[in-house]
Amino acid sequence: MKITRRQSLRQASVLPLAAAAAGIATPAVAQAARRLTMVTAWPRGLPGLGTTAQRFAERVNQMSQGSLVIELQAAGELVPAFEIFDAVEAGTADLYHGAAYYWQGKHPAYAFFTSVPFGPNPLEFQAWMHFGGGQELFDEVGRQFGLKHLVVGDTGEQMSGWYREPIESVEDLQGLRIRFPGFAGQVLTRLGAVVVNLPASEVITALASGTLDGSDWVAPWPDRAMGLYRAAPYYYYPGYQEPSGMLDLGISLSVWESLSEAERTIIENAAQAETLVTLAEYQTRNAENLKILVEEEGVELRSWSEEILDRFLEVSREVVAETAEGDALAGKVYASLGEFLRTTSEWTRISKNAFLNARDERLLY
Amino acid sequence: MKITRRQSLRQASVLPLAAAAAGIATPAVAQAARRLTMVTAWPRGLPGLGTTAQRFAERVNQMSQGSLVIELQAAGELVPAFEIFDAVEAGTADLYHGAAYYWQGKHPAYAFFTSVPFGPNPLEFQAWMHFGGGQELFDEVGRQFGLKHLVVGDTGEQMSGWYREPIESVEDLQGLRIRFPGFAGQVLTRLGAVVVNLPASEVITALASGTLDGSDWVAPWPDRAMGLYRAAPYYYYPGYQEPSGMLDLGISLSVWESLSEAERTIIENAAQAETLVTLAEYQTRNAENLKILVEEEGVELRSWSEEILDRFLEVSREVVAETAEGDALAGKVYASLGEFLRTTSEWTRISKNAFLNARDERLLY
Repeated sequence: MKITRRQSLRQASVLPLAAAAAGIATPAVAQAARRLTMVTAWPRGLPGLGTTAQRFAERVNQMSQGSLVIELQAAGELVPAFEIFDAVEAGTADLYHGAAYYWQGKHPAYAFFTSVPFGPNPLEFQAWMHFGGGQELFDEVGRQFGLKHLVVGDTGEQMSGWYREPIESVEDLQGLRIRFPGFAGQVLTRLGAVVVNLPASEVITALASGTLDGSDWVAPWPDRAMGLYRAAPYYYYPGYQEPSGMLDLGISLSVWESLSEAERTIIENAAQAETLVTLAEYQTRNAENLKILVEEEGVELRSWSEEILDRFLEVSREVVAETAEGDALAGKVYASLGEFLRTTSEWTRISKNAFLNARDERLLY
Repeated sequence: MKITRRQSLRQASVLPLAAAAAGIATPAVAQAARRLTMVTAWPRGLPGLGTTAQRFAERVNQMSQGSLVIELQAAGELVPAFEIFDAVEAGTADLYHGAAYYWQGKHPAYAFFTSVPFGPNPLEFQAWMHFGGGQELFDEVGRQFGLKHLVVGDTGEQMSGWYREPIESVEDLQGLRIRFPGFAGQVLTRLGAVVVNLPASEVITALASGTLDGSDWVAPWPDRAMGLYRAAPYYYYPGYQEPSGMLDLGISLSVWESLSEAERTIIENAAQAETLVTLAEYQTRNAENLKILVEEEGVELRSWSEEILDRFLEVSREVVAETAEGDALAGKVYASLGEFLRTTSEWTRISKNAFLNARDERLLY
């Protein structure tokens, strides 16, 4: 069934290219569309992650004036959430929308392209991607799997997870079963927790039944929609472990290379535009939902103690450095990001951080 | 000469529309382009402001597959910097790129669409624009002048200006001649300074000759390119007065409404994409140039004292409220932004600010 579908897509896509090559005049509006299948790691319509993927597809479809049509297949519709990477690599789908740190089992360098504990915030990450060599390194990793990567969306600074009981010390993490992907999962493992990786659809059930003691998800907006607070009311910040949450578009490299320059520019602009708007949407909806969670749902907002943060930092440094040491390309990514961050964080300190500290008791309104 | 130019543009733009209406099949690549003239408030190629305008035009030109061609006329080429708004209103140009607070003499509500002292940071501003009603209000102001507005670029958090001598107290501002547009200019006036409005090209000469004692510009990257530090070495932060620096695209409303839906979507996506990339570029280049200014050029980085910040806040509140009270639409903008900011700043506090404070002594690298 997969092969049949793929073959029919390939046949459909040949027509306009052949017409163009033959010099046949076809107005853009009447031209047969090139149809691309996008699979995602999210349930259809999930606020934030699902809607970002949908909006990205709509941007491309509108701007291409009918030459490209991206058709979205949500998690479980064509393939399950964690098989989207394989589906594009195998040619079952043309592109996917997910998060790069889901693929660290494929290549350790992917661990650096979603978020890094005590690392860059969303804007610093964008700066590195666009002006610090990050995009070129992301592409270098992708080429090993026949993929072109683009960032499409960023959740912004995440929260630090929901827990069924308060975490007063590092010892309280011992033996807890926690859902946390990426570096943070490794940090928690080293601190004695039992870390499991579950897709979105299974987290709430596991927390409610007590087979899971804590879980990250994203931030107040998607977390409230998921209902995590009903089973685990202690909500921790700051999100030391995910100060950004870049989302990953993986496109079949052969599909990418078959597109016109204008089509590639349209996809790149849609990706950048959607990243800005996603950040703005999380800012808005997180604020609204935080207020409701705290004022109406009895959520207990807790900040990590300085001592716990110090221990998280210590173990984060070990985990990240070991990931980098195990592979030459991962090491190159680690070094590039570190060098960039040491300089850029000094500007963040006197601009963003100094302003927010000055405003803390001095909001204009 | 202006009328002749405009007439010839109008004639050129009729061709493809007429062809489309007649149902004539024209392949997109061969279609006669609709040419739009964009005037800007910046010198051609000025790092940051000038390059943002140029890159926006290139995005549209590439994505439209030849149907739109935006031609850039920098400050002084077709009209002087501060006449770009009038030029589009009069039909001499089709669109302009500038900063909305330059137009507060046209309408006081424009003062709210670049930056607000002790107000939103860039992401909070984007959140309000896209999800809090800001775009609709911007359009409501623009309609009075036959304009459609879009944000194209944001400088990020700005610095608080260059001074020839240190400012140790509010009294030190008495009688100083300072270049500062927008609300901050009014704040400084009320604190006893003599505020002047000069275009970019005249600032450095005035500082060097001593006819100007201090000036804002933007942040380390464009400021170093302008050379302000050579004449005024004391560089102040945090930029309480401009915690964002949204840049303003004004498009003739009749031109906007004559575009196809796909062309409008292309322009909107180019605007959003360029805003993200501009923010990333300022983050990168400001950090690089700050390092050079401090380590190699002997710039004296100074933070405003708590006492001065308190006084700036007090006067900022007066000035902003008075601007809002003087006009019904300005009052509506002020109230909308304030209501949004009170909720959204609480999320900023526990996400962005709490993370940066936790990271301050705990950078991963």
